[in-house]
Amino acid sequence: MNSFGSNFSITILGESHGSGVGVVIDGCPAGLELSREDFTRDLDRRRAGAKGTTPRREADELQILSGVYKGHTSGTPLLLWFQNRDKDSASYKAILDTPRPSHADFTARTKYAGNADPRGGGMFSGRLTIGLVAAGAVAKKLMKGVEVKARLVQVGGSPDVDKEIERASEQGDSVGGLVHCEVRGLAVGLGEPWFDSAESLLSHAIFSIPGVKGVEFGSGFECAKMRGSVCNDPLEDASGKTSTNHSGGINGGITNGNPLILRVAFRPTPSISLEQKTIDLKTGQSTSIEIKGRHDACIARRASVVVEAACAVVLADLMLSQQILSPVVDKTE
Amino acid sequence: MNSFGSNFSITILGESHGSGVGVVIDGCPAGLELSREDFTRDLDRRRAGAKGTTPRREADELQILSGVYKGHTSGTPLLLWFQNRDKDSASYKAILDTPRPSHADFTARTKYAGNADPRGGGMFSGRLTIGLVAAGAVAKKLMKGVEVKARLVQVGGSPDVDKEIERASEQGDSVGGLVHCEVRGLAVGLGEPWFDSAESLLSHAIFSIPGVKGVEFGSGFECAKMRGSVCNDPLEDASGKTSTNHSGGINGGITNGNPLILRVAFRPTPSISLEQKTIDLKTGQSTSIEIKGRHDACIARRASVVVEAACAVVLADLMLSQQILSPVVDKTE
Amino acid sequence: MNSFGSNFSITILGESHGSGVGVVIDGCPAGLELSREDFTRDLDRRRAGAKGTTPRREADELQILSGVYKGHTSGTPLLLWFQNRDKDSASYKAILDTPRPSHADFTARTKYAGNADPRGGGMFSGRLTIGLVAAGAVAKKLMKGVEVKARLVQVGGSPDVDKEIERASEQGDSVGGLVHCEVRGLAVGLGEPWFDSAESLLSHAIFSIPGVKGVEFGSGFECAKMRGSVCNDPLEDASGKTSTNHSGGINGGITNGNPLILRVAFRPTPSISLEQKTIDLKTGQSTSIEIKGRHDACIARRASVVVEAACAVVLADLMLSQQILSPVVDKTE
Amino acid sequence: MNSFGSNFSITILGESHGSGVGVVIDGCPAGLELSREDFTRDLDRRRAGAKGTTPRREADELQILSGVYKGHTSGTPLLLWFQNRDKDSASYKAILDTPRPSHADFTARTKYAGNADPRGGGMFSGRLTIGLVAAGAVAKKLMKGVEVKARLVQVGGSPDVDKEIERASEQGDSVGGLVHCEVRGLAVGLGEPWFDSAESLLSHAIFSIPGVKGVEFGSGFECAKMRGSVCNDPLEDASGKTSTNHSGGINGGITNGNPLILRVAFRPTPSISLEQKTIDLKTGQSTSIEIKGRHDACIARRASVVVEAACAVVLADLMLSQQILSPVVDKTE
Repeated sequence: MNSFGSNFSITILGESHGSGVGVVIDGCPAGLELSREDFTRDLDRRRAGAKGTTPRREADELQILSGVYKGHTSGTPLLLWFQNRDKDSASYKAILDTPRPSHADFTARTKYAGNADPRGGGMFSGRLTIGLVAAGAVAKKLMKGVEVKARLVQVGGSPDVDKEIERASEQGDSVGGLVHCEVRGLAVGLGEPWFDSAESLLSHAIFSIPGVKGVEFGSGFECAKMRGSVCNDPLEDASGKTSTNHSGGINGGITNGNPLILRVAFRPTPSISLEQKTIDLKTGQSTSIEIKGRHDACIARRASVVVEAACAVVLADLMLSQQILSPVVDKTE
Repeated sequence: MNSFGSNFSITILGESHGSGVGVVIDGCPAGLELSREDFTRDLDRRRAGAKGTTPRREADELQILSGVYKGHTSGTPLLLWFQNRDKDSASYKAILDTPRPSHADFTARTKYAGNADPRGGGMFSGRLTIGLVAAGAVAKKLMKGVEVKARLVQVGGSPDVDKEIERASEQGDSVGGLVHCEVRGLAVGLGEPWFDSAESLLSHAIFSIPGVKGVEFGSGFECAKMRGSVCNDPLEDASGKTSTNHSGGINGGITNGNPLILRVAFRPTPSISLEQKTIDLKTGQSTSIEIKGRHDACIARRASVVVEAACAVVLADLMLSQQILSPVVDKTE
Repeated sequence: MNSFGSNFSITILGESHGSGVGVVIDGCPAGLELSREDFTRDLDRRRAGAKGTTPRREADELQILSGVYKGHTSGTPLLLWFQNRDKDSASYKAILDTPRPSHADFTARTKYAGNADPRGGGMFSGRLTIGLVAAGAVAKKLMKGVEVKARLVQVGGSPDVDKEIERASEQGDSVGGLVHCEVRGLAVGLGEPWFDSAESLLSHAIFSIPGVKGVEFGSGFECAKMRGSVCNDPLEDASGKTSTNHSGGINGGITNGNPLILRVAFRPTPSISLEQKTIDLKTGQSTSIEIKGRHDACIARRASVVVEAACAVVLADLMLSQQILSPVVDKTE
Repeated sequence: MNSFGSNFSITILGESHGSGVGVVIDGCPAGLELSREDFTRDLDRRRAGAKGTTPRREADELQILSGVYKGHTSGTPLLLWFQNRDKDSASYKAILDTPRPSHADFTARTKYAGNADPRGGGMFSGRLTIGLVAAGAVAKKLMKGVEVKARLVQVGGSPDVDKEIERASEQGDSVGGLVHCEVRGLAVGLGEPWFDSAESLLSHAIFSIPGVKGVEFGSGFECAKMRGSVCNDPLEDASGKTSTNHSGGINGGITNGNPLILRVAFRPTPSISLEQKTIDLKTGQSTSIEIKGRHDACIARRASVVVEAACAVVLADLMLSQQILSPVVDKTE
């Protein structure tokens, strides 16, 4: 299913080369001031254009089709929609029976018995992240005082991200990248011990982004190598501030008031111009393909804002889910 | 909330030093042969006893309180329950106002306004993983022909797992570990493009396990350093078999028929006997604590079977969620 | 929230006088042949035109914005959209501070703190039922061999439905009506003992339709007056056929293979031209209003197809939710 | 599935003649003072004993197995459990192949392929309502200032409820009944326009109670006979108070501050001592049965408190689901 969230729930819609792509947001509180300008900055960050990004040029013009009245959210679901304009489906026809390695071609063909839209990756395209980015912009605006910031910190294992992407692109190849995300200004108490743990919900949303193969919080995989005496974060004051942050701002699944820190590993774009081996599913014979479609050399480059969006959507949901009924007896004093 | 799953849904129950711990399973199909013996092997793997594990000794005697009739599941929810017997709560009283570093003490105190059960970690205790392991045993039995296998592959960065745990334990310290999990025998087609992607659901469940700080699929974080020409997995035959498996058995969020591979990073047990700095929340002053409670030196040691359970629960749910209505027109032929 | 359904999930979108109205369907299996013609019959039945219906004239032209590729569902969510064209919002301005009796004016104003779109009833308008009808058309097409038929059987307590509506309309008044719905061709076994009982899910969906004040199954409220010896339905043969059908085709929340029968009570349209007493919320003083907007004299008239849609959506979801894992041991033989 | 609720979620557990019956409550806020005494009054009202009720005598001794610490809810799920003691399964063996008319015998046998527990009705037994009543007691305690009151107002169409039950019982027959429920003290604004309408959620929960065949709000089915000029409820003051209450306290799916009123039709107990016709499923031949098990002559008699519980659970959930994020701009002033 394509929906996520309990009280701030989003549904991702559309296909890469269909009528358009977008998102439905159900549960956004009424009264939030919202106009197309609120989306501009994040949509611009996601848009192609830099070296090594796809030559597809989309205006990404947002239509707010439902949920806003007189410049404020009205309480009904938001429908945010982007028409597809610059569609070039010709180059995809060749690959219907010769699945591109590490693409969803083979799994989609099997799962949907050949009915999935293959043009431009259909529902598997990175183009659909635009809906998530739009939802993230709404979530960020809801969370006053919370700052969500992600950036591309490594490409191909190197901090010289532009240089690495350019090299891969020139060689008809693609390359992976690492995104670092930090959230400041969160209250203590978001998340639950088990299946609504902050890590569970955040990783769930982030692993939905095409191309993600790893997620870690705080010192993450490094923690597996540490001693407790090093990894533990001593408290510094009664607000819960810690002197180190190996925990990444979460203990027991619940935010502890320190910066929430996570890192996301993106695989290289599976589409590359270099010749690759695959199978012709009609004949069962080995064959080779060269992928001519338009694609980024490094999907991670435009993914920082998508990671931010995934985080913002989850955190807004957790903030809306806080229990407010009054019988709570505060026993800490 | 403490529930997870759409069509095979589980709810984790209990506290470490309360009446007991357990799990409710809603959605298990009727007619599955099930007796207490089906749980023995996994419960034994989870139980303490090896060097460096907690001295707490629980018989872990399973009570099937609901959902089984004449040795088969009846279609009503299963309630699987384990009474707590070997409770020793004395040592936890000292730390109520001096939160243990990197424990949930501080976040729980704030979130639940002092009402959470602090004894033995309450609902945050690793003891609650017994419910997940029990649910996993049911899920595994449902999935005939599917093999879920996890093992501890590194402790403190070393493959000498016993040696590292023993060293940490002798020094009053704890140490992190890395669990590798592999699932064989899955059909092509489990999972969905977006929020029900196999990675999303699996990571969601796994990050619910106490102490997990990172999850990666296939080559995971290494993918972020690779070129596409290396990372892509060429198809070998029409069954979808690939010659490499950097994707970890999942493309586009959907299982591709190759082994599903993931790794999980566990932090060191936050409880250590060594002296640690913290804050006295009543006075706001710095102070130090030594944790006397019973605990494992390496939570990862007993976690392999818990990771297996998390995977099995998710995969059984995905198998139950496959759509069966008949109008599907197979266009691949 | 505006979503409903587990495996065939729909979200109702839009406002009466906004850009448009529509529905998202998530979970529709891939491969269902689907074109705009499949919706024509049900949309026509819902459309205004007969005597006593609103003078608002909408073409109700369906746009399939997502989820269909080459005439078949593709596995991605369907977005079905209808632009609003014949909007006349002038007459609604007068009533912003003088809530119309038994309308949602007062509750919406309070709940959404004045942010809800009041034009034409906003999200509370009967216009939004078009999305439900569209979803129902898809659900009906999925359920081969199942026939869902509803009809208006009484208006104002009389079977002369046209005559009663005309009389009420001529007098500037409105009138309630009763819809009878029957579903044939259902398998035995849809629904669950407790919260997914067929009655629970059907009533949930039906009570979402604006204006519904009562739902009953089989002999319904008459059952409360009966003896068991009369109300019980004796089995006639091993297929489960019963000689009477006071149960309405459901026992223990589960369909029993006999026709599923339910009745729905619709209140009179709250909008009437006659003068009515209300309160001026700005002054707190009593005042009176005459409602000039366009409205039906009997909302039940166009509601039969909406009731059918609500039933179809629920039943398709239940059919998709049937458990298919194979371990079931059939013990009935 | 056996769970219901978004933020105050309950799961009904157990079988009539298994180990016990109970309920899990997930989402109850921490800090609610709660002890076994809080359940006594409602459990007593549900318990058998009056004339025409089953001779089965259960102490209904509540065990709080999880979720309460030092007399307050701790934030972890509540597990409320009742052991079954007075089990007498002998009389049910005879009817395995001769389904009792209007019972779930036939549907359960088919759906669960013979694996359901048939003893005492298994998971279909009215005994399972004890879990709902227990959850209702918690929900009521959460909702300070809200009063939920249901009573049996008719049996067999007559207000002489005791007399009618006695007559039916003496004749080996059973009889239906009507329960009226009223909720006072609710805020304006609970519920949503579409699928979370107050009527949708309340009817969903109420139709889960065994034996319910109809639910109506306010003037309910009478509304279908009325004119709008009669049915509309004029506002009396700025608090939303109306001079009549045909709407039953709900407009547009949202509570309007007036008493919430609903009525529930219960069918006669399907178990009667009188001889009834049925089918022998082994032979396919007609046969007759006399039901010897223990049962109430009128299930509606003990159902008032069950209806209250269903209402309380839904309303507590709606109160917990109110959105609290602060950006709301109040435009009503």
